[in-house]
Amino acid sequence: MIRWDNLTYTELEKMLNDKTVVILPIGSVEEHGPHLPLSSDMIQPYYIAEQISDRIGAIILPPISYGWTKTMNSFKGTISINFETLKMLVFDILNAVCKTGVKNIVILSGHASKLHMAALNLAADEILDIYHIKIMVLSDYDIAYEYRGRLVPETDSHAGIIETSRVMAIAPELVKKEWKYEKKKTEKKYMVLKDIREYYTYGTLSDPEGATPELGDQLNKLITDRLIDYIKTNFEL
Amino acid sequence: MIRWDNLTYTELEKMLNDKTVVILPIGSVEEHGPHLPLSSDMIQPYYIAEQISDRIGAIILPPISYGWTKTMNSFKGTISINFETLKMLVFDILNAVCKTGVKNIVILSGHASKLHMAALNLAADEILDIYHIKIMVLSDYDIAYEYRGRLVPETDSHAGIIETSRVMAIAPELVKKEWKYEKKKTEKKYMVLKDIREYYTYGTLSDPEGATPELGDQLNKLITDRLIDYIKTNFEL
Amino acid sequence: MIRWDNLTYTELEKMLNDKTVVILPIGSVEEHGPHLPLSSDMIQPYYIAEQISDRIGAIILPPISYGWTKTMNSFKGTISINFETLKMLVFDILNAVCKTGVKNIVILSGHASKLHMAALNLAADEILDIYHIKIMVLSDYDIAYEYRGRLVPETDSHAGIIETSRVMAIAPELVKKEWKYEKKKTEKKYMVLKDIREYYTYGTLSDPEGATPELGDQLNKLITDRLIDYIKTNFEL
Amino acid sequence: MIRWDNLTYTELEKMLNDKTVVILPIGSVEEHGPHLPLSSDMIQPYYIAEQISDRIGAIILPPISYGWTKTMNSFKGTISINFETLKMLVFDILNAVCKTGVKNIVILSGHASKLHMAALNLAADEILDIYHIKIMVLSDYDIAYEYRGRLVPETDSHAGIIETSRVMAIAPELVKKEWKYEKKKTEKKYMVLKDIREYYTYGTLSDPEGATPELGDQLNKLITDRLIDYIKTNFEL
Amino acid sequence: MIRWDNLTYTELEKMLNDKTVVILPIGSVEEHGPHLPLSSDMIQPYYIAEQISDRIGAIILPPISYGWTKTMNSFKGTISINFETLKMLVFDILNAVCKTGVKNIVILSGHASKLHMAALNLAADEILDIYHIKIMVLSDYDIAYEYRGRLVPETDSHAGIIETSRVMAIAPELVKKEWKYEKKKTEKKYMVLKDIREYYTYGTLSDPEGATPELGDQLNKLITDRLIDYIKTNFEL
Amino acid sequence: MIRWDNLTYTELEKMLNDKTVVILPIGSVEEHGPHLPLSSDMIQPYYIAEQISDRIGAIILPPISYGWTKTMNSFKGTISINFETLKMLVFDILNAVCKTGVKNIVILSGHASKLHMAALNLAADEILDIYHIKIMVLSDYDIAYEYRGRLVPETDSHAGIIETSRVMAIAPELVKKEWKYEKKKTEKKYMVLKDIREYYTYGTLSDPEGATPELGDQLNKLITDRLIDYIKTNFEL
Repeated sequence: MIRWDNLTYTELEKMLNDKTVVILPIGSVEEHGPHLPLSSDMIQPYYIAEQISDRIGAIILPPISYGWTKTMNSFKGTISINFETLKMLVFDILNAVCKTGVKNIVILSGHASKLHMAALNLAADEILDIYHIKIMVLSDYDIAYEYRGRLVPETDSHAGIIETSRVMAIAPELVKKEWKYEKKKTEKKYMVLKDIREYYTYGTLSDPEGATPELGDQLNKLITDRLIDYIKTNFEL
Repeated sequence: MIRWDNLTYTELEKMLNDKTVVILPIGSVEEHGPHLPLSSDMIQPYYIAEQISDRIGAIILPPISYGWTKTMNSFKGTISINFETLKMLVFDILNAVCKTGVKNIVILSGHASKLHMAALNLAADEILDIYHIKIMVLSDYDIAYEYRGRLVPETDSHAGIIETSRVMAIAPELVKKEWKYEKKKTEKKYMVLKDIREYYTYGTLSDPEGATPELGDQLNKLITDRLIDYIKTNFEL
Repeated sequence: MIRWDNLTYTELEKMLNDKTVVILPIGSVEEHGPHLPLSSDMIQPYYIAEQISDRIGAIILPPISYGWTKTMNSFKGTISINFETLKMLVFDILNAVCKTGVKNIVILSGHASKLHMAALNLAADEILDIYHIKIMVLSDYDIAYEYRGRLVPETDSHAGIIETSRVMAIAPELVKKEWKYEKKKTEKKYMVLKDIREYYTYGTLSDPEGATPELGDQLNKLITDRLIDYIKTNFEL
Repeated sequence: MIRWDNLTYTELEKMLNDKTVVILPIGSVEEHGPHLPLSSDMIQPYYIAEQISDRIGAIILPPISYGWTKTMNSFKGTISINFETLKMLVFDILNAVCKTGVKNIVILSGHASKLHMAALNLAADEILDIYHIKIMVLSDYDIAYEYRGRLVPETDSHAGIIETSRVMAIAPELVKKEWKYEKKKTEKKYMVLKDIREYYTYGTLSDPEGATPELGDQLNKLITDRLIDYIKTNFEL
Repeated sequence: MIRWDNLTYTELEKMLNDKTVVILPIGSVEEHGPHLPLSSDMIQPYYIAEQISDRIGAIILPPISYGWTKTMNSFKGTISINFETLKMLVFDILNAVCKTGVKNIVILSGHASKLHMAALNLAADEILDIYHIKIMVLSDYDIAYEYRGRLVPETDSHAGIIETSRVMAIAPELVKKEWKYEKKKTEKKYMVLKDIREYYTYGTLSDPEGATPELGDQLNKLITDRLIDYIKTNFEL
Repeated sequence: MIRWDNLTYTELEKMLNDKTVVILPIGSVEEHGPHLPLSSDMIQPYYIAEQISDRIGAIILPPISYGWTKTMNSFKGTISINFETLKMLVFDILNAVCKTGVKNIVILSGHASKLHMAALNLAADEILDIYHIKIMVLSDYDIAYEYRGRLVPETDSHAGIIETSRVMAIAPELVKKEWKYEKKKTEKKYMVLKDIREYYTYGTLSDPEGATPELGDQLNKLITDRLIDYIKTNFEL
């Protein structure tokens, strides 16, 4: 696994070329129910990034642990940064990376909320106004949720079976044995949400019952494979 | 060692009280000569933060790996984010942390350049306009450099004996065995610097000769002790 | 149909109460193939807003004709405004509307691209930090596309059968009789798009063949009905 | 009358050349006494733009209905957007229009307050830093008020004889039959105004008595003629 | 004459009360033909402020020497600051002054261009959203130009008879004996101006012939008297 | 002594060449104890600038009287402008100066607080991204404090012996005969300070006892000499 910042500047200089793929992992500090750590959205994409780095030699940038996750703010410990801050941070990092001549960038976010992803896309869009490079922006959950209705129920969601299984597989010591899930009422469609506690008692948005580390391993493997395929196709490697 | 984001939201909730000390470690992705990793400014304050957490139960926030380090931009691998971005990022994180009721915050930066530190101070200053709390802002190098003229030469600097020794003590596998140092000419005082390469051939700004892991251990220990003293005095713990 | 700005200030004052629903229609000035007008994304939600106003007395705000539609910029006539501009514009308008005491707001956008919608959601989110009101944000295409796979092919898209039919039903004089559609290659998933011309020769992103004004009428009616249901449920009217 | 957005992108492409004049009509949503609609400042310049388009083939952009009109905020229904928002909106639109190769732009505002006009001028000024084009910025009231002291009293003002007559001529169905006007005290010169209600009971700032649709027609015709003259002279058509 | 900053903090504290009038003089660094100094717009309002301070005890703030004067940028020596910078600077100063309890503020600008004045008005407007105070914003030229058509020709303008006379009366040593004036062509009305050199060879915009220090004295006295009247009336002193 | 703005644009044009040194003096409006005027930080660097101009022909720009001095805000009369405002103001001025072809700029600030100096450095840094010129940024106190431990006690500070002596030498009429100094408690190191009154009763931060105009003259002379040396060396004159 290659971390950009574990290299000296002379080592990095020798390593970079037009085929280099650089991955920027982004997480969030966000409640994930009373059973998963606040770092869940960082742990998962970082693990995927490590697998990809091991298999195709991609270079991993220092991760951004913070994201936009405002609707979870009422749960203690959630740290949401502003949309503009997140966008500028990603822009500045990509801008510096592009100046080194890197041509292929993957922004991989564990957190997948629409506004969070929009900040990442906006930063990437502004970079493409300046540099002639290729950028992928996705969440590992964009891929993971393709397995809903197959490996897990269609309704699986935040801190549910997929997420609990995946964190169990990666960092079992951080997962609590007992989980709680209670939906208070049906979500109103198209309403701008202020606080998720309106609908859920705990931060768990779907029942984790059925989560296992084995399922987590299987999913992490499937996501890694799929993402490597996308990288090879999209960057024409 | 307690990491804020390794806890669940319910665990964190129970842990927080008026005496809680929270540490935000900040680094930079910056060249440190051909012998030290780009992460040197993150490795060192993070290690100090871990020691402090072990000894007095301070909670460590997810670190910010990126800082303002523009004069090193010409060395490949350095990633400098903008002053405004850095300020907003620190502000947003502190703002969320203060909303949880935390009263004592330490911003501990491995990178110590004046503009970088000013961004951290400005963020802290804006937080103090809103919350009635206490904030310390310092670099571990504010303390380390007090030992210049004693344990190391007065002129020791970036990627020199102190820094090489400290990284050797913490992450020996990332330190290259051979170092290079060459000063091209005397720095002009009070001139705004564009590119450090005007004065130095390599990114090493003082000769690391004499660095040892033992000296690094000694310094890390001294810094930890001193910083714990400051924390206890300043926060009246 | 009630337009906010066709009233005098005294008329409006008498009309407003806690049950009032206000609709802000938002479009874009965007190419829609060689057969549909640049105003297509404004014509459609505005028509829906008129129907809703007729049926439940909602008040229509002066529409915003401009949106974020950058990937279509290479087609002459497309006018994309910046993300930040769009967000601030919507925020300022909602802010003024909320000060009059309005409690129920619908932001209805004809354009549905992710970043465009994110700007609207971000504005709404910032308004909810200040006012205790209810806001819906959606595109009429969020509803229209539920009929893909039923009334039209699953792949129907920008300037395709649904859009052509709907504009035919509302403003037949603006629809050209001959349309052109040509896909050059398969879109790369998760890649940040710079210019849609990479994939399509004309601005038509799915084949409009099969579009009729009758289908347009049917769809407009279905969307209106569904949206009125949402409004009644979400605002508890 | 040619509306930019009623064309398809291919139609527009054929139409544009170096002699093309594009008009951006700007209004405000602002109280105009108890007898005129909130849209009065949009109705008037839009009607003038239509006349000009009919006579010299100018292309009309989708109008901006919102302006800076803060001193009228205490009258319900007035929607004032911020100075910066208005400036950015106009800048973004002109920027996109200039990229299509348009060389001659008229910004025509129905609202004429100093700060509102300054926002339009500032946007135009920033555009001229980038593009080598010609821009006119004016209010139709810059011309209309030249007839004060001739066709109407010297003191005629907001919602007075000129404005009432002109709206009567364009949209008689929106004008109430009875008007009210009451000045409370003399305005203090050079004082920054917070709320016009300090000086006037209703939003009518001069007595509309004497307004007729015939006078309105005459004025609209005079303004159109004069503006066409300016356009021909200034753009050397 | 009382200068805010010539006092100690304890002296100022004793002096301030609800009747205190504070004057913020604003100039520009702008060409004024080959015969007047770049500081002409600062010299004049500052002199007026001194007279007012002498006569009614108003306190003068440290002046702002820089303004928005972009159309003169092509003449060497002109220093135009951005609109936003000027607005923020005036806002910050007024904000601090208001916090001391001052209730009556005069912003007196020697430079009178529309965008420059708009920046001052916008800052004042934003201050009035926060503090319950009174602010006057004007240029001494708003008053001086009332004497056009009486003491000087109707067309007198920038660096013309009034301005030359006034500077002669205040700082004769800075006025060159020979002046130059040449108009190249008639200004186009309503066109956004990029560079005044399009119309004038030198920076002199009307012929200074006829300027005398006696006329300058007379005008300075008239402006002072009139402004004191406005201050007494507006602030009800 | 040459002031930029006492020249006409034609005079300035003739004077400027590649060897020209331009000085931008910056102060603050800040309490300096009950014995020194609020303008102390402006008086001192301006006097130094005058000496330098007399001796080496440097051109002095109109000074900026306002700075960032927030920790002194609780003393009446202190006017602190925001960090961003100060940075933009200095940037705009330097930007205009650089466009005239000036190659050597000195920013000389009487106020020396870290955030204030950071704003000046950040502006200079942004200018160096655009222009190929040389900029010095310093406070006259950077030099003055080198004499602590020699001419005055090591602990001399704000409004102490050096500052009182220097102002006595330059503007004796503004210095009060009696001074007050009282330290309440020891400052906490590395704590972000909100209000200096926590530590000091008056605004005097070290005892001025021993201040004399003779010492002030001596210091002003020493600072001038040293600064001229720096200028000659740094700009290679």
